[in-house]
Amino acid sequence: MRIMNKSDLPSLKRSVDQGTEEQRKSVQTIIARVKHEGDEAVRAFTEQFDGVTLEDMKVTKEEFEQAYQSVDGEFVSILEEAAANIRSFHEKQKTSSWFDTNSDGTMLGQKITPIEAAGVYVPGGTAAYPSSVFMNVIPAQVAGVEKIAMVTPPGKDGRVPDGVLLAAHILGVDHVYKVGGAQAVAALAYGTETIPAVDKITGPGNVFVALAKREVFGDVDIDMIAGPSEIAVLADETAKAEEIAADLLSQAEHDARSSSVLVTTSPELAEDVKEAVLQQVEKLPRKEIAGKSVEDYGMIVLCRDHEEAVAAVNEIAPEHLEVMTAAPFDDLGKIKHAGAIFLGPYSSEPVGDYFAGPNHVLPTNGTARFSSPLNVDDFVKKSSIISYSEQALKTHADKIARFARLEGLEGHARAVEIRKERWT
Amino acid sequence: MRIMNKSDLPSLKRSVDQGTEEQRKSVQTIIARVKHEGDEAVRAFTEQFDGVTLEDMKVTKEEFEQAYQSVDGEFVSILEEAAANIRSFHEKQKTSSWFDTNSDGTMLGQKITPIEAAGVYVPGGTAAYPSSVFMNVIPAQVAGVEKIAMVTPPGKDGRVPDGVLLAAHILGVDHVYKVGGAQAVAALAYGTETIPAVDKITGPGNVFVALAKREVFGDVDIDMIAGPSEIAVLADETAKAEEIAADLLSQAEHDARSSSVLVTTSPELAEDVKEAVLQQVEKLPRKEIAGKSVEDYGMIVLCRDHEEAVAAVNEIAPEHLEVMTAAPFDDLGKIKHAGAIFLGPYSSEPVGDYFAGPNHVLPTNGTARFSSPLNVDDFVKKSSIISYSEQALKTHADKIARFARLEGLEGHARAVEIRKERWT
Repeated sequence: MRIMNKSDLPSLKRSVDQGTEEQRKSVQTIIARVKHEGDEAVRAFTEQFDGVTLEDMKVTKEEFEQAYQSVDGEFVSILEEAAANIRSFHEKQKTSSWFDTNSDGTMLGQKITPIEAAGVYVPGGTAAYPSSVFMNVIPAQVAGVEKIAMVTPPGKDGRVPDGVLLAAHILGVDHVYKVGGAQAVAALAYGTETIPAVDKITGPGNVFVALAKREVFGDVDIDMIAGPSEIAVLADETAKAEEIAADLLSQAEHDARSSSVLVTTSPELAEDVKEAVLQQVEKLPRKEIAGKSVEDYGMIVLCRDHEEAVAAVNEIAPEHLEVMTAAPFDDLGKIKHAGAIFLGPYSSEPVGDYFAGPNHVLPTNGTARFSSPLNVDDFVKKSSIISYSEQALKTHADKIARFARLEGLEGHARAVEIRKERWT
Repeated sequence: MRIMNKSDLPSLKRSVDQGTEEQRKSVQTIIARVKHEGDEAVRAFTEQFDGVTLEDMKVTKEEFEQAYQSVDGEFVSILEEAAANIRSFHEKQKTSSWFDTNSDGTMLGQKITPIEAAGVYVPGGTAAYPSSVFMNVIPAQVAGVEKIAMVTPPGKDGRVPDGVLLAAHILGVDHVYKVGGAQAVAALAYGTETIPAVDKITGPGNVFVALAKREVFGDVDIDMIAGPSEIAVLADETAKAEEIAADLLSQAEHDARSSSVLVTTSPELAEDVKEAVLQQVEKLPRKEIAGKSVEDYGMIVLCRDHEEAVAAVNEIAPEHLEVMTAAPFDDLGKIKHAGAIFLGPYSSEPVGDYFAGPNHVLPTNGTARFSSPLNVDDFVKKSSIISYSEQALKTHADKIARFARLEGLEGHARAVEIRKERWT
């Protein structure tokens, strides 16, 4: 983990490569085939990429039951408590349709309607993520989405991790399909005999999943393309080096391309954190991943003063930001770009990954400059409502017609003017 | 304009082609060159595609002044009144940061921050669209976006339409660049010596603009990819055929690929509207475009009953929907998917294009199933706030650690547990 002076760094902006031309071509082929051949193509690609011949893509009642039996009751209650916290936080995000009336009889407003069907991609791979199930499904449920389908790649044994099924079961999601990769995204976008088409696909995945989501975007909606995890810690001399190191490593262990950055004005803290990271990483089960991540993408940025430090954080626009300074709330107003902001020494990043309530699906790769954590608004859409009265049209018809003619759209002008026959 | 029975139509879902592989390649090349060569590439492509050698890309004070002088004061007041209406409607969309506290000292919330810089694409071509300027810029201004840059293609004379400059001037936007096409999108996404990089690009354009927006998506945010205009009218025998015909043609005149559909249960109305469209289209200045549009994409869908008619409308998920029935408000709750809903006989679609207040940048091509009119939320982003207290962490640390271990993420568990040293 290098210690660098901020002034020596040209840019802290991160840009992670999102796939090669070859990968893109391959994803296009997969999508085209799933679109036209349906289940048959899904089965073929699952055999090719996951090494599994699927008899039944859909998870059965027995499999859910088995997953439920595989863990003890105490763990089920932890999951249920987490789900309740997440639900409670997202309930507070709900917005209502609204309207506004004018004395001339005009009514204008916005009607909020949930999307009808959502699809959730739950990644497989090295770790099973029941928390991904919660974080993607609960906002959709709170928004009022009626149909929720989940896809997740099968293991070599053709099974899906118990934790994922348990989480789905707790939320009452029973449409779970053992399909992953670009073929799963294509199936959700266009539908197959077995997998229903949805209107929006969310959830993280590998580069093929990310590329597939980008391809189907427009035919369906997607959440932001997820990159590797990121954490930035803004800390002063009041923070504990061991805690910062542990938090940095919690993100580094996700992916060798994860990024963990300490931003500080304290040279002492910088040295201590560097040391603590080196010591702690050795003891981690995922030390190879975490070690490579901190070596390649870990950094300690030493700043001249607090102002420069805050500016550095905004330049990074991190997915997760921890503020471990003497007065973290004083810094909140200065932070412009971050997916989630963890304030104070007790708000360790994993608190937000599982339990506190806010969503862990967050903008990465600097996209916190313009995008938000997954939230209830992502699963509703608005329709504008326009109700003009006779009086309102009488008052404004000529102005609207003149505006239309300036834009060269005579048909628009006439559509308004033809109503004048009603009162002349 | 064909009259079809709903029961004979397999699907009303519309899908407009979004460009060829060749166009896509060309757009990728343009973007790569602008990204690396900056202004030089922008100038070269403007020469190639617009046939104009740009001396100065940026619109000067004199050009704004000239545009302002080119129209009479009455028209300026119409524009100002429209801008005020649009601003007033969008002001009502603003949301606030919020937080929630728990007796254990936990504070959770969402912090709302405007994006820093937005770029607006204003199309050129057959008509000048000052209304596009209003509809894209005002939501950004209301959201609190500080830097707004506008691009619009120059005409053969190297000039930008007066109406567009006037609209920008009224809103106080002075960063306007005479650049269009994919090169303009690339310039806004990555910045050049002259054109500043932005965080989000909105506004409609031709297929090259749409493809370019799709390419840069992820590096910057974009609004939905815009397709040709669409209108659906849900009407019963209480509606006037001539008014419906005029409204259908107001969208048909936009583009030969625009879609205009009447959905009704009345065979009489169907015949009358068909007749009225044929008569009115002949008298339109843009009759070639409008005529081709109604011939290729115009349709009258005759339904068995009102329920089938509403279902047809939801299947189309139109950009604009007019409800011209005996009791339009009774139908509002049944409409699930539409960009903007115009209620009653006086709410002619052009009322919303220019003047009423709601945005005219609306989801097309069936995307109203999952997306919304351009609005203030599009120009802000949320950050989750998590402040855990010592007591909260004491209560929940073991549960969080257990959850993390189930996901195979030991480093996450340790980050939480290392805090326990503070109280043991």
